[in-house]
Amino acid sequence: MADEALFQFLHSEIIQYVNTAETGESENGRCVSKLENMGFRVGQGLIERFTKDTPRFKDELDVMKFICKDFWTSVFKKQIDNLRTNHQGIYVLQDNKFRLLTQLSAGKQYLEHAPKFLAFTCGLVRGALSNLGVKSIVTAEVSVMPACKFQVMIQKM
Amino acid sequence: MADEALFQFLHSEIIQYVNTAETGESENGRCVSKLENMGFRVGQGLIERFTKDTPRFKDELDVMKFICKDFWTSVFKKQIDNLRTNHQGIYVLQDNKFRLLTQLSAGKQYLEHAPKFLAFTCGLVRGALSNLGVKSIVTAEVSVMPACKFQVMIQKM
Repeated sequence: MADEALFQFLHSEIIQYVNTAETGESENGRCVSKLENMGFRVGQGLIERFTKDTPRFKDELDVMKFICKDFWTSVFKKQIDNLRTNHQGIYVLQDNKFRLLTQLSAGKQYLEHAPKFLAFTCGLVRGALSNLGVKSIVTAEVSVMPACKFQVMIQKM
Repeated sequence: MADEALFQFLHSEIIQYVNTAETGESENGRCVSKLENMGFRVGQGLIERFTKDTPRFKDELDVMKFICKDFWTSVFKKQIDNLRTNHQGIYVLQDNKFRLLTQLSAGKQYLEHAPKFLAFTCGLVRGALSNLGVKSIVTAEVSVMPACKFQVMIQKM
């Protein structure tokens, strides 16, 4: 519980700091992209540690399952609740109680702030996948807090 | 190990980001003070969780012991190696292998970067103490990496 709290508090601080530091016309977009970039590098670092002793992955789906189970559990203390794919390079990862959103009130008026709270994690997934040789675009959407969906679009080389 | 890595990577990212964002004449000082402030708020949050179920502390020394043992172990996975005090409000906490410095090379040429890697933790301790009713000033010094000393000066109200 302690580690979790540390990560959550630190994550909130970063959002707040980046949000204040990035002032300018397109501030919100820049804030989100800075957070995404931080997540990317953290994801790259983490996946290296996590996969140090795992056997080579069979295929893309195998990689995605690892992200949904082992990776998610390490970072967010729970698995992804639902993984869907169209078998053409699009994966949807649904987390019904996303830990970084549980601190926010569930009211509809806060939905506009959700992107800031998801950007780091989008980057985290993109970074992890990138270091496993899978190039992707990761986006997130929230309809009802604290549930959220991450969409991973694999970029074929 | 996973959580630890997450915290370490995130901590590095913050330092890097804050260091880049705070440009200006006194940039280094501002970077350190921003990091210290983030640590302060995270420390405040953490100590609330950690002490939820602990009995009331006897005195100042009791509080310091809690910081050195329980608090340090939760955050850095080890206890403080040595706690000294002059019994007049100054405490010196020595960590012989401070986790946030182990990523840096031990060469002397990197000593000048050490303050950036200690600022967050100084704030963390100050924030934790503050929420336990102990007002303090916390500074840190490194002579040989990755050992470091945190000096806590209690401010009498």
